[in-house]
Amino acid sequence: MRDIAVFSGSAHPQLAAEVCAQLGIPLLPVRTQRFANDCLEVQLQANCRERDVFLVQPLVTPVQEHLVELLLMVDAARGASAGRVTVVMPHYAYARSDKKDAPRISIGGRLMADLMVTAGADRVLVMTLHSPQIHGFFSVPVDHLHALRELARHFAGDDLSRTTVVSPDLGNAKEAASFARLLGVPVAAGAKQRFADDRVAITSVIGEVAGRDVIVLDDEIAKGSTVVELVRHLNDLGARSIRVACTHGLFADGAVKRIAALPNVREIVCTNTVPIAAESMIPELTVLSIAPALAEAMRRIHDGESVSALFDSVEPVVGQGLF
Amino acid sequence: MRDIAVFSGSAHPQLAAEVCAQLGIPLLPVRTQRFANDCLEVQLQANCRERDVFLVQPLVTPVQEHLVELLLMVDAARGASAGRVTVVMPHYAYARSDKKDAPRISIGGRLMADLMVTAGADRVLVMTLHSPQIHGFFSVPVDHLHALRELARHFAGDDLSRTTVVSPDLGNAKEAASFARLLGVPVAAGAKQRFADDRVAITSVIGEVAGRDVIVLDDEIAKGSTVVELVRHLNDLGARSIRVACTHGLFADGAVKRIAALPNVREIVCTNTVPIAAESMIPELTVLSIAPALAEAMRRIHDGESVSALFDSVEPVVGQGLF
Amino acid sequence: MRDIAVFSGSAHPQLAAEVCAQLGIPLLPVRTQRFANDCLEVQLQANCRERDVFLVQPLVTPVQEHLVELLLMVDAARGASAGRVTVVMPHYAYARSDKKDAPRISIGGRLMADLMVTAGADRVLVMTLHSPQIHGFFSVPVDHLHALRELARHFAGDDLSRTTVVSPDLGNAKEAASFARLLGVPVAAGAKQRFADDRVAITSVIGEVAGRDVIVLDDEIAKGSTVVELVRHLNDLGARSIRVACTHGLFADGAVKRIAALPNVREIVCTNTVPIAAESMIPELTVLSIAPALAEAMRRIHDGESVSALFDSVEPVVGQGLF
Amino acid sequence: MRDIAVFSGSAHPQLAAEVCAQLGIPLLPVRTQRFANDCLEVQLQANCRERDVFLVQPLVTPVQEHLVELLLMVDAARGASAGRVTVVMPHYAYARSDKKDAPRISIGGRLMADLMVTAGADRVLVMTLHSPQIHGFFSVPVDHLHALRELARHFAGDDLSRTTVVSPDLGNAKEAASFARLLGVPVAAGAKQRFADDRVAITSVIGEVAGRDVIVLDDEIAKGSTVVELVRHLNDLGARSIRVACTHGLFADGAVKRIAALPNVREIVCTNTVPIAAESMIPELTVLSIAPALAEAMRRIHDGESVSALFDSVEPVVGQGLF
Amino acid sequence: MRDIAVFSGSAHPQLAAEVCAQLGIPLLPVRTQRFANDCLEVQLQANCRERDVFLVQPLVTPVQEHLVELLLMVDAARGASAGRVTVVMPHYAYARSDKKDAPRISIGGRLMADLMVTAGADRVLVMTLHSPQIHGFFSVPVDHLHALRELARHFAGDDLSRTTVVSPDLGNAKEAASFARLLGVPVAAGAKQRFADDRVAITSVIGEVAGRDVIVLDDEIAKGSTVVELVRHLNDLGARSIRVACTHGLFADGAVKRIAALPNVREIVCTNTVPIAAESMIPELTVLSIAPALAEAMRRIHDGESVSALFDSVEPVVGQGLF
Amino acid sequence: MRDIAVFSGSAHPQLAAEVCAQLGIPLLPVRTQRFANDCLEVQLQANCRERDVFLVQPLVTPVQEHLVELLLMVDAARGASAGRVTVVMPHYAYARSDKKDAPRISIGGRLMADLMVTAGADRVLVMTLHSPQIHGFFSVPVDHLHALRELARHFAGDDLSRTTVVSPDLGNAKEAASFARLLGVPVAAGAKQRFADDRVAITSVIGEVAGRDVIVLDDEIAKGSTVVELVRHLNDLGARSIRVACTHGLFADGAVKRIAALPNVREIVCTNTVPIAAESMIPELTVLSIAPALAEAMRRIHDGESVSALFDSVEPVVGQGLF
Repeated sequence: MRDIAVFSGSAHPQLAAEVCAQLGIPLLPVRTQRFANDCLEVQLQANCRERDVFLVQPLVTPVQEHLVELLLMVDAARGASAGRVTVVMPHYAYARSDKKDAPRISIGGRLMADLMVTAGADRVLVMTLHSPQIHGFFSVPVDHLHALRELARHFAGDDLSRTTVVSPDLGNAKEAASFARLLGVPVAAGAKQRFADDRVAITSVIGEVAGRDVIVLDDEIAKGSTVVELVRHLNDLGARSIRVACTHGLFADGAVKRIAALPNVREIVCTNTVPIAAESMIPELTVLSIAPALAEAMRRIHDGESVSALFDSVEPVVGQGLF
Repeated sequence: MRDIAVFSGSAHPQLAAEVCAQLGIPLLPVRTQRFANDCLEVQLQANCRERDVFLVQPLVTPVQEHLVELLLMVDAARGASAGRVTVVMPHYAYARSDKKDAPRISIGGRLMADLMVTAGADRVLVMTLHSPQIHGFFSVPVDHLHALRELARHFAGDDLSRTTVVSPDLGNAKEAASFARLLGVPVAAGAKQRFADDRVAITSVIGEVAGRDVIVLDDEIAKGSTVVELVRHLNDLGARSIRVACTHGLFADGAVKRIAALPNVREIVCTNTVPIAAESMIPELTVLSIAPALAEAMRRIHDGESVSALFDSVEPVVGQGLF
Repeated sequence: MRDIAVFSGSAHPQLAAEVCAQLGIPLLPVRTQRFANDCLEVQLQANCRERDVFLVQPLVTPVQEHLVELLLMVDAARGASAGRVTVVMPHYAYARSDKKDAPRISIGGRLMADLMVTAGADRVLVMTLHSPQIHGFFSVPVDHLHALRELARHFAGDDLSRTTVVSPDLGNAKEAASFARLLGVPVAAGAKQRFADDRVAITSVIGEVAGRDVIVLDDEIAKGSTVVELVRHLNDLGARSIRVACTHGLFADGAVKRIAALPNVREIVCTNTVPIAAESMIPELTVLSIAPALAEAMRRIHDGESVSALFDSVEPVVGQGLF
Repeated sequence: MRDIAVFSGSAHPQLAAEVCAQLGIPLLPVRTQRFANDCLEVQLQANCRERDVFLVQPLVTPVQEHLVELLLMVDAARGASAGRVTVVMPHYAYARSDKKDAPRISIGGRLMADLMVTAGADRVLVMTLHSPQIHGFFSVPVDHLHALRELARHFAGDDLSRTTVVSPDLGNAKEAASFARLLGVPVAAGAKQRFADDRVAITSVIGEVAGRDVIVLDDEIAKGSTVVELVRHLNDLGARSIRVACTHGLFADGAVKRIAALPNVREIVCTNTVPIAAESMIPELTVLSIAPALAEAMRRIHDGESVSALFDSVEPVVGQGLF
Repeated sequence: MRDIAVFSGSAHPQLAAEVCAQLGIPLLPVRTQRFANDCLEVQLQANCRERDVFLVQPLVTPVQEHLVELLLMVDAARGASAGRVTVVMPHYAYARSDKKDAPRISIGGRLMADLMVTAGADRVLVMTLHSPQIHGFFSVPVDHLHALRELARHFAGDDLSRTTVVSPDLGNAKEAASFARLLGVPVAAGAKQRFADDRVAITSVIGEVAGRDVIVLDDEIAKGSTVVELVRHLNDLGARSIRVACTHGLFADGAVKRIAALPNVREIVCTNTVPIAAESMIPELTVLSIAPALAEAMRRIHDGESVSALFDSVEPVVGQGLF
Repeated sequence: MRDIAVFSGSAHPQLAAEVCAQLGIPLLPVRTQRFANDCLEVQLQANCRERDVFLVQPLVTPVQEHLVELLLMVDAARGASAGRVTVVMPHYAYARSDKKDAPRISIGGRLMADLMVTAGADRVLVMTLHSPQIHGFFSVPVDHLHALRELARHFAGDDLSRTTVVSPDLGNAKEAASFARLLGVPVAAGAKQRFADDRVAITSVIGEVAGRDVIVLDDEIAKGSTVVELVRHLNDLGARSIRVACTHGLFADGAVKRIAALPNVREIVCTNTVPIAAESMIPELTVLSIAPALAEAMRRIHDGESVSALFDSVEPVVGQGLF
């Protein structure tokens, strides 16, 4: 396969530019035009023929605009004889529509996967899917990255002797446990209980948190209600300090400010899988870049090296020369 | 096949309701929900199993929202074991993206057709496509209606002895000629010339228009620039009066007011394939309903009767009892 | 569509026969032959043409034999011009292969779904999938039943005033909560914690169980290790009595006897989604039939009635005339 | 991808040989056999494995024979493990079947595109399609060339000071305008009007032609009726001289002689996209070769260079060193 | 499904008419048009919507014309919303291209099957395929009839006490044995031997033929060389009389006359799966109609009755009231 | 394409190891795990990304286990971004299910081919298919090898002056004839006759065998009944000695011992396309390796060289330096 060619949709061009800088290649230009009838036209403005094309587009607000723009890009790349088309989707929003919990709804996570393949996607590169089963919705190869190393590096320099990682949800605590192992600290979890009226709430925290420096870890924070609830429990239980970390910082409705204002919350950390709105860029927020990880994965995909090797061995990073 | 079940997306529920009224059946309820991450979920709120499901959605602003909503509805209907899913799309906006006139663009009209089929559409019902070749973009059966009878009926009661139908574009004058035949009047056309700098403009009008009551006929009016240009020519050539008719009244940027303000323009007529914005509802505008035509086509599709029979013989309607 | 035609593979003919008895139709004969080279040939021994064919086969040991036998039946039905082919798979064993938790493995739950569709399945009817996302692995309509009503009816006649439903896993407690609501009793759950060495164990029970008559509810019991662990915790916490209920009673390695021998365990209840081996048929085991539920779902599928309506409203059943 | 391998069907082996000569490679042998039952068998007589296979076949009389022969070649190449199969179809006759202008007909242009893809075509290379929408009928990448440069070079040496390019059809005058721009001369067009009885005829010529040296430009000439009609109008309007140019010189029913015999017609120019019958090879006919253009496009396709770059900038060629 | 609708291509309209007469329905009209560029357009001239469409077309000379005409008809029927499209192909000529006995050829029998499915065929009805494996080339249901009953009825009135059925090929003698069983007579077979130079010839006849009234049975006779060779052997071996029977009487190159002229040959019998040329209609030839069998199969397909039941029990017909 | 990567399923790892030794590459490790519910999980334990993956698995007992294991491997390779996946299936057991000789059965040979393609096979490499038509069941390229050279080399050193090759079945004697040509000896064949009761038996032998050293050649020997019957005839006819050769030595039910015990049988020869059970390894059995042939074919597939060239010219090998 010939050269890598990276294009960005309009969802997050800064991330694409960062990835390209990491790869030492130019971000190729795209022209997106909106007609009088509100239809979009997207032109990839560099030769795609036989090239290894990567199209960077997280599904962020406005999701439908960005989805259709992406589908037009994928189809354009295929029609322009791209050697291979990889969709780089650091945030796959429709992954949350992963089950049919009401009759006569679409499982959106499957549908959008099928649409991308119909448009011409040969493979996808995603980050921290909401549930691991989503992988099975795609009929093309998927590389599924996570941001645990990036998050762990952020905390690795600190004194972690009193630290505990806390997952808001005991049921999905696998990632939190991996993260704790990276940091060499214990893990705990909020226990969500479902009440008779189908309401779900955190009712307790499993594991010791009294007097601990807690790092709350979640995959994404949108409105932040779960985190707010968890922080309240942690404070009730005597946590010494609280920091909040996630991969996807969607931060709807002023979530970041609301969390930062909670007692005992020292810091909020997320990555740049999605663009962070200006009003969320408060001093308590730290945004880590996953561009190096994406770039490395893309390089390995292009060169035919193992991507899983990147993530398989999540070894403890504390006290190692790596950081 | 069991009963007809008609649902409407959020693009044009009034039209869907009118169609259902014509058919004497209820418009079935749909619940569209937008999540915190801007993803949509659509629930068809009535049993679809083995039923002959029709989903009504023209592609109007915001086009991408309405397109994705439609795809979710189609997938939901298929997943709910609909006997057959027919997309009723009175205005297929992406049909204008029907050729690759620049390198590395998608032919959107083909892509969206493929996406609808991927989502589960078994057939589509469209109205006045921008070019007849679009039909060939679909891999499922298409019923392609036009609104000439509706438009003709509107003018049939008038004194047409001095009337001439004028197409803005000589190249696509077939519809105008059919329309003129329906009214029993002559046809003329604006001649669009392409200049060396690739600019296109109407440079003359072929056919006699001096002293004539002109009906300008176009498939759609968005910004209306072509019509404005044509009206100027018609006035220069001594037309006695001018009326403007089209199927799709998109009317962007105050188009309807701009046209109505031109000298000698008596009336603007369109159909309700798309919803008309309140600010366009001026006295000079007449909106004809194509709901009866859609309803009749849907009834025939359901009953297995010929739809082409509806439109094949476009006989003169003037002086007939029909009007 | 013409008549229902029900055939059974060799996995669980008793269940198929029971379903047919419920429907008042004969179970149609199938001839399965094994050649000298170990290949299978399956003949459906009744006319399938234009009929609504249902093929009953849970994936139980030997799973690969039953899977291939099923695929041959599906292909035979399609080739014999069946009007529609529905796979009735009360236990979809490969659903547990639902994620890629190691590099270079297949997501078996998706693969087997694709194979069934390739062979000609038009739809599937499954029961209590291991995770709800599995639904999204199928590209054809899925009806997903559960056995909560059947299980609830079993307990409904008892004195439930001191009863609590306990889920072994807090993360998947939704079904347990629905079940508790049916019985009008509270719910609790075992909290599984993941240790630094990736070992998972139940470390506590959330909710009050001391002095309670516990009903443990799980989707399936194979080796039963989780249940054994949970029962130990429940006894430590002072539960008054323990009963164990599940949908799929796989009972490998003498599980049923091992559980029955635990202190305080009064009864084990499962359904007949899978055949129960003779050695598991001890007095403490009660096997409930889901044949009526399957039959009703099949009747609704055939007649085009809503299947979700069967399961949507899981209303309290205690004290109702229904039981 | 390994070497180029070019094979020719029996429609136009001379063109394939010319293309190969341009590329400096041999035209590989093909054996086509007709059985007693009139079925064809085609053998590609050189190794195709992993090679970049191009199959040259315009759809000319007998079209059905050439189409089926091509499909057999495509399937043979795929079955022989070709790395990629590109159909080089300089004349796609079925492109004229591009709309459903009568009920219950096939849109042949779409059907044949689908058949080629079913047989195994990975991409197609076509020349001067009858309408640009045909591109959208293909589900595989299309490279769409035109012959304007070749035609322009032919005229570029002449005195063009009094020359005007005339399109027979005002509606499709885009190509004529591009051609005129290449020559640096003005453009005019015949205006086809549709009468009430659905008859279409050229009724006037838009643009100045009196005293001009006219070059009539059309995409193809079959029976030539339109050109004959246009020439009559041009003579009536006082054209000084007339030359006729087209890409596809099908020349049915003695068309070339009939046109050449018209008053004032000096020359007829076409390309060799289709083979020219011996009886059409009169002195007034000039046949230009598009083999260099096809060869260059094939080289670029093979080497992964932009093909659109070849055609995007259609710059004026008169007075330039190029000619 | 609604009414049967039967259309015929131009290959064998007489057969289609006979079938319709049997079914008591009209043969619906088709308009086939050839354009100046040799492309075909086929219009089905009756409503197809939701109807059970059967398209009758054996693949006879000119095979390619009839194949493409059929594909256009299939696509037209699908596009016209046929409820189901069944290709009735009494002679599938490309079935002889059933293996890859040379490198880089297409297996035409598979390719044409795929093309029919691409065009929209939902099922096919064929007669006496050259090898039973061809059935497996189709991805849609196939009904495979044979003409043994028709042929047996022809001979059943005769004195068969000295009759032996002889297959030209011992390897494919299954049909001959069935036929002999129908007549209650013994079977014999020519033994074709393959020589070192790959030449194949009949070298002996297995079974007793001396003094017997032989009926030679083959699937098709094209040039007739095999039959001529067999007849010579039979005469050498002292056969008393010889009659020749086959399903497909292609009779190329005067085959029927050549066979009739052989010593001892009393009669040649074939069916009307293909049209018989006028020059082959000599007194020695008897053409039996398979229209009743096709009609009965079509009726059963339409009514959802078993077709195999028609052919499964090939009981002896001699001496039964049936004849 | 990057490096070859060869993995073996559990059916015949020895053969895979031998092939890899021939190619001078390591056989890559595979981990196959069986869960408590009898489902399989297969992990390819080496990087597959962009590599040319070959998966070796003949379909031998237990066939269904090996088939599903293979499908899981194919899917895993595809999901792991293999550049190409080739299934190497030296024995395709389901190829014997190649026709629909009873109503409502699957044509297993076609179904399994489709399943492999669904799972992700890009091509297959098979050996000595039961009938050549099976090739047409695959929608992906097939390389079809035979073992005639290997078998011929085994006999080439002997005195063949009195040798005759005998095929058990006159109808499929093509391979025997090719084999005889390789050895420079005559060919004969058993004539199988079908009786009125549908029983088939060898009734005679065509060709001279009295006083000859016979080599019986068949494609596979399972129970060996046909060979036993043939040997009896050969002895009756005065054969001087008998040796038995086949490609696939399945040897069910002690077949090899039963054949070896027949009078006059000197040797049984087969290849290692399938593993030979220990109890079949008697002194009279010689097992030839087809690993070199497979390895050479795989090398050519990988390098894009002609595979048919390997097998096209089956020249006489006796007396040549080759042996």
